[in-house]
Amino acid sequence: MADSDLITRLAQRLSAKLGADAVLTGESVHSRLAGVSRTDTLKAAMLVRPRSTAEVSLVMKACSELGQRVVVHGGLTGLVHGAEAAPDAVILSTERMTAIESVDVDGRTLTAQAGATIESIQQAAVASGLYYAVDYGSRSSATLGGGIATNAGGNRVVRFGMTRASVLGLEAVLADGTVISSMNTMIKNNSGYDLKQLFIGSEGTLGIVTRAVMRLYELPRSQNTALVAVPAVADLARLLKRVDAGLGGQLAAFEVMWSEYFQIASEGIEGVAGRRLFAKDYPCYALIEAVGSDTHGDADRLLELLESVLDDGIASEVLLAQSLDQRNAFWKVRDNVEALLRHRPVRYFDVSLPIGEMPAYAQAVRQGILQRWPHGHCWVFGHMADGNLHVSVAIGEVDDKTLQEAEAIIYEPLRRFRGAISAEHGVGLEKKAWLDVSRTPEEIALMATIKRALDPRGLLNAGLIFDA
Amino acid sequence: MADSDLITRLAQRLSAKLGADAVLTGESVHSRLAGVSRTDTLKAAMLVRPRSTAEVSLVMKACSELGQRVVVHGGLTGLVHGAEAAPDAVILSTERMTAIESVDVDGRTLTAQAGATIESIQQAAVASGLYYAVDYGSRSSATLGGGIATNAGGNRVVRFGMTRASVLGLEAVLADGTVISSMNTMIKNNSGYDLKQLFIGSEGTLGIVTRAVMRLYELPRSQNTALVAVPAVADLARLLKRVDAGLGGQLAAFEVMWSEYFQIASEGIEGVAGRRLFAKDYPCYALIEAVGSDTHGDADRLLELLESVLDDGIASEVLLAQSLDQRNAFWKVRDNVEALLRHRPVRYFDVSLPIGEMPAYAQAVRQGILQRWPHGHCWVFGHMADGNLHVSVAIGEVDDKTLQEAEAIIYEPLRRFRGAISAEHGVGLEKKAWLDVSRTPEEIALMATIKRALDPRGLLNAGLIFDA
Repeated sequence: MADSDLITRLAQRLSAKLGADAVLTGESVHSRLAGVSRTDTLKAAMLVRPRSTAEVSLVMKACSELGQRVVVHGGLTGLVHGAEAAPDAVILSTERMTAIESVDVDGRTLTAQAGATIESIQQAAVASGLYYAVDYGSRSSATLGGGIATNAGGNRVVRFGMTRASVLGLEAVLADGTVISSMNTMIKNNSGYDLKQLFIGSEGTLGIVTRAVMRLYELPRSQNTALVAVPAVADLARLLKRVDAGLGGQLAAFEVMWSEYFQIASEGIEGVAGRRLFAKDYPCYALIEAVGSDTHGDADRLLELLESVLDDGIASEVLLAQSLDQRNAFWKVRDNVEALLRHRPVRYFDVSLPIGEMPAYAQAVRQGILQRWPHGHCWVFGHMADGNLHVSVAIGEVDDKTLQEAEAIIYEPLRRFRGAISAEHGVGLEKKAWLDVSRTPEEIALMATIKRALDPRGLLNAGLIFDA
Repeated sequence: MADSDLITRLAQRLSAKLGADAVLTGESVHSRLAGVSRTDTLKAAMLVRPRSTAEVSLVMKACSELGQRVVVHGGLTGLVHGAEAAPDAVILSTERMTAIESVDVDGRTLTAQAGATIESIQQAAVASGLYYAVDYGSRSSATLGGGIATNAGGNRVVRFGMTRASVLGLEAVLADGTVISSMNTMIKNNSGYDLKQLFIGSEGTLGIVTRAVMRLYELPRSQNTALVAVPAVADLARLLKRVDAGLGGQLAAFEVMWSEYFQIASEGIEGVAGRRLFAKDYPCYALIEAVGSDTHGDADRLLELLESVLDDGIASEVLLAQSLDQRNAFWKVRDNVEALLRHRPVRYFDVSLPIGEMPAYAQAVRQGILQRWPHGHCWVFGHMADGNLHVSVAIGEVDDKTLQEAEAIIYEPLRRFRGAISAEHGVGLEKKAWLDVSRTPEEIALMATIKRALDPRGLLNAGLIFDA
């Protein structure tokens, strides 16, 4: 059968079962943007929009019977080309599966469909006096299903873990349409294999997450944020230890910025009374945030702690946010990746490595980039407490082969530093060629064994991460 | 080949490769106790004691070639018959793999072999000013490998999670001897499938954990413990919410005891000045522990919080431990399962269910047991904040069929309460018959798919959890 015949037949069949508005083809697919920060449009043959787990199962049964490959779309905020759909592909979008189904106030759980945005989940939790701890910049578009499929990290990992740590239960549809319903609601459940782990962080290659039960926490009552200038990169690890030990479990973020990043990202962001944040430049900076329950005492304790690290010379200057505006200004610096765009195009990398190796790694990468591209730029910042650095580079418009040189400068040193090519973004298509930097041949073979066991014909998100 | 020939051949081969002292047969196996709290002895044909991952791989290659089944032994503290070895089985014991290999003070990780005890890991962490957060009663015998294989829980899960949450990386040997080395040291690593999850909580059926990298925390400086008498079982969930919200992330344990358990477990344990802990009896009790960093202020804040719940009538009486001895006395009540043994034999059950359903479930189980056995006993206590209850019953010496009646009273209600037959002990052989209470046929089929993919001939811990 010709491909277009197959798509026509599939569209008819799915329209009959799911309703005509569930199935888009032609221009109504091709006019859609390929991602939230992209300008090109989708090329896929068809986009289907089921409303429930049962409908996702119907779609997969139909596609499986015809041997049709499927690419899963959530909020399209991914950063590693994990949602590319070829012209002959069918896209399954969770855009009509946005229900927050329930919040259990005693059990402190939230149940939602995969297409609910992270922001809508955070808001539903707060409306019940509770807290969904996972948070990252793309919260208004990114979906729960996408966050689970990529095990999204973000800003509060040191305290609350990656998305994986917040998933209590989930429902997923396998390539053949089988529904695996593991909607556990308890923190403890050792009744057989914890199957949900298969679907978390496997980038949609093993099943389509359709619903999930997420752990909520009691809403923190206090939030205190400080910006700290640090005398030397080598002091960052000591500062982290001191602050984490001193905060007794309250540390929610410990973000670091190397000088070059801080200078460009803090331009135009004012400190007290319209002055610069710090009077002079320092080798690096840390943004520290603590969440707790003592609205009066917590700020005092943080200040006391910061005074002690100043006394000990691990910090050169400290600013404690005195208002929500100031807190937001501190975070603006940390999140101000847009400031780099004056040097566009900018390439973003996301790696992890042991905290103790970060100073040497950052220096090696910076030197490598600037040696190869003397007029280039290399900015380093990241979630240090989680072992996660983001490296951004500007080396002008280059071809793919030249870009690979930059990738090699970023990724190859991770072999000797025992790091990972992806801390929180996943592998997708973008990092697939570098997977062996972080994983052994035996590990990659085992990944393929699992993939073949769950999706023997390779229908789901084919080609991501590794070749099965 | 006759079985004894096969064992002889295997023993010769392994002795040649691992040394004669690595291979035990006959009386030197049969004289060993079958478990730390058992009086019967091992029946297996052979016990092999490798010293390293490479040696475990050699053993599995040899066994795999001969189609020999292997049962893995750690500290033998399991509670669900997960380490039973038939007369024709080979036992692989991790007893000579006890090395704590390293502690990374900046990265806050510890690397150890699977046979290291939980206690030795806790001590090595403290020696570096750090904290291994997983803790449970059998810490002096239980091993890291066993804890990972069973995803052990324990006393601090509400704050630090199950064992799974503390495993950053691990090394495991598959049934065919393949070494899967995933010794990640970072909190964040999304570079492909998170293979370690396969080996955590799968009770040694998918691979043998040989080494692991565990997450450590900064050592808490304050620890405050309170015993609270609660006016009604229905108030426990409100008390938990108030305490957790008020402690801002410091809550490390919230243990509950129903009246019958508290009365028998607290006998002979004295409160202030030799008096009873509480002047009168209450429907239930909560043991609350907070860990933090403020050696002066934390106790005051807990006291203030307890006064507020007293004022609101959610607590009837509170005792705040004034010394380590008092703290230990409170925990002695919680842990005093031995006190039940005056009614031996006692059967122990470990289930989880939504916190909001606990009062109704406990009542249903108690009524069920006492209706069927009017002279029996039923004690309920557990880790409420984790959704975990322990139910202990004394119904005299009964045959297996009668015991199944008791199991049905405990497990069957979990269907309607959406609970799980095992919260933290695992399934082993003991709960295998009840797996369908908590898991769907599709889930169990998927478990079998995974098992067959990793261990197609069913050599590792055959027969545990489900039939592959």
